[in-house]
Amino acid sequence: MQTRAAVARAAGAPLSLETVDLEGPREGEVLVEIKATGICHTDEFTLSGADPEGIFPSILGHEGAGVVVDVGRNVTSLKKGDHVIPLYTPECRQCEYCLSRKTNLCITLRATQGRGVMPDGSSRFSCDGAPIYHYMGTSTFSNFTVLPEIALAKIRPDAPFDKVCYIGCGVTTGIGAVINTAKVEAGARAVVFGLGGIGLNVIQGLRMVGAEQIVGVDINPGRREMAEKFGMTDFVNPKEVEGDLVPYLVNLTKGGADYSFECVGNPTLMRQALECAHRGWGKSVIIGVAGAGQEISTRPFQLVTGRVWMGTAFGGARGRTDVPRIVDWYMDGRINIDDLITHVLPFERINDGFELMRRGESIRTVVTY
Amino acid sequence: MQTRAAVARAAGAPLSLETVDLEGPREGEVLVEIKATGICHTDEFTLSGADPEGIFPSILGHEGAGVVVDVGRNVTSLKKGDHVIPLYTPECRQCEYCLSRKTNLCITLRATQGRGVMPDGSSRFSCDGAPIYHYMGTSTFSNFTVLPEIALAKIRPDAPFDKVCYIGCGVTTGIGAVINTAKVEAGARAVVFGLGGIGLNVIQGLRMVGAEQIVGVDINPGRREMAEKFGMTDFVNPKEVEGDLVPYLVNLTKGGADYSFECVGNPTLMRQALECAHRGWGKSVIIGVAGAGQEISTRPFQLVTGRVWMGTAFGGARGRTDVPRIVDWYMDGRINIDDLITHVLPFERINDGFELMRRGESIRTVVTY
Repeated sequence: MQTRAAVARAAGAPLSLETVDLEGPREGEVLVEIKATGICHTDEFTLSGADPEGIFPSILGHEGAGVVVDVGRNVTSLKKGDHVIPLYTPECRQCEYCLSRKTNLCITLRATQGRGVMPDGSSRFSCDGAPIYHYMGTSTFSNFTVLPEIALAKIRPDAPFDKVCYIGCGVTTGIGAVINTAKVEAGARAVVFGLGGIGLNVIQGLRMVGAEQIVGVDINPGRREMAEKFGMTDFVNPKEVEGDLVPYLVNLTKGGADYSFECVGNPTLMRQALECAHRGWGKSVIIGVAGAGQEISTRPFQLVTGRVWMGTAFGGARGRTDVPRIVDWYMDGRINIDDLITHVLPFERINDGFELMRRGESIRTVVTY
Repeated sequence: MQTRAAVARAAGAPLSLETVDLEGPREGEVLVEIKATGICHTDEFTLSGADPEGIFPSILGHEGAGVVVDVGRNVTSLKKGDHVIPLYTPECRQCEYCLSRKTNLCITLRATQGRGVMPDGSSRFSCDGAPIYHYMGTSTFSNFTVLPEIALAKIRPDAPFDKVCYIGCGVTTGIGAVINTAKVEAGARAVVFGLGGIGLNVIQGLRMVGAEQIVGVDINPGRREMAEKFGMTDFVNPKEVEGDLVPYLVNLTKGGADYSFECVGNPTLMRQALECAHRGWGKSVIIGVAGAGQEISTRPFQLVTGRVWMGTAFGGARGRTDVPRIVDWYMDGRINIDDLITHVLPFERINDGFELMRRGESIRTVVTY
């Protein structure tokens, strides 16, 4: 079949809107019609050429929602008409990682996904007979896309695609970091570095579990109002702090943060996030993705005196198990997604969505097909 | 009263064996006759002058065992004749830290202990009217010493002083890192960097909890035999590994260590210990104390993909609660201390004990009064 798609032809160039060829699903695979997709900084990271593992030409996009239109042989958990969210972190429930009970990082698709191909080593996308590569195993910037069954979360049919697509990455990453990775308890004090889409979802995760103090740190005062709406109790603009930021935050949190979250991808902030954590037990979670080759550092004394440095990918969520629950939370009004989606554009304007993100004007732009 | 003591008069000089003045216990304090004390690298770190917080003149020593000979007013949990182990990490059971259920780092004595004085700001030791400072709140290189009640663990009277003194630091640090900090479970694979006194105690802690694979890493092949006796299953000499050590260890542990422990104090080893931990869930615990100003570093990707970097002080043990249990384990034959104490010297030869440690000839030297 053929499908409309926004193709990343070269690093640094705008996406090319094309009609490409798409092969149907093979064994264990599912054909999905994408109804809506978010545009995430990770897509931009790859499109810009900064990602050393970026592959071109490819179809980006990893934050979608849609409907199953066909299934390959031996697909048992999904059928035509099911509503689904694609998962860049699959959940096979069979591998060493899924069975460990300690991580969400299912290993089954890792090698092929990183090479931009399906599990059998080939791409389903092509143009004039030349392959176009998949991206993060999802490629939601195509109206139709093929995924392995284990990379699809089945969700309730009444959830709006143009909202819950955001659960495919940002919402789950932020809320999951709080509940799955840090395991924040009621009454805790937390510091969140970066009040963009991830940071705001961390904040609403913290509010959901009953954190007592939620400090947001951002150099953009324009983020304050929205963050307060999501549950931030204290705003800190580092540009307005006299002296060092870390002791200021330690003092503000009465001894240090029980939990801190870095949502930017900046190694300097990662260090500050660790060092503002409470002596004895403060946990600091890295969510942001740093540039290639960048390193974090600190004095080991920070760890020997009880701070814990950790990170999270997809919020520690097991996609097939946890994503449908987060959809329920949205539908029940327990979490707010609507206010985070600041822009909705038709597919044809996807490059405008990237521009909005680059200029910092959007929190999240969703593209609808 | 007067007491024999080994006084650290100046950085880099041998200890000076003297008779010094010792004031009796004030309110909440206890006078202890030290019967035996170990010599630890931390004492040497301070004596050498490398410790930027070292204070002179002072009486070092923090790994002792002895008998209560007098108690001050309002001491309720100890009486004359009780056998005790001094605690450089006290346990007041009242402060924010003790009540947190998350750490062993009781805060009550921290400020004064760091300044070499008792909680009321004064020292009990003096010579010709000039104060001699306490060290780590314990000063076990004095035959008699005064400690706060909350810095003494009461132990069973049949435990031999010249063995269980080692529980005052090295044994508890190593075993505690396994059971309290890392919380290693049966069947786990672990890598231990450094097969000195701490590393060997980590190894016997790992054996006690049922670890499946215990890899020891040391450049000294002479450590192998003892480590195997304590439970090491695989020995790795980095000098004999072709290529990088980290992938070698990842391969040896079939994907990475579930838990790794750095027992040396070397930032390069701390990084290797983290990076040989298993993707998704490997925890790496820093036990060794790095030199002043040294830093650890890694790529944040290591944490984002699920590794956890943490540290431990006194093995995460609450001294008054956990030390008596470890004494029981020794008396029940569940842990081996005897083989770790390679040298026993009379107090007068304490400087010889430091020489044995500096030359790497001893695992632990104990001095008896």
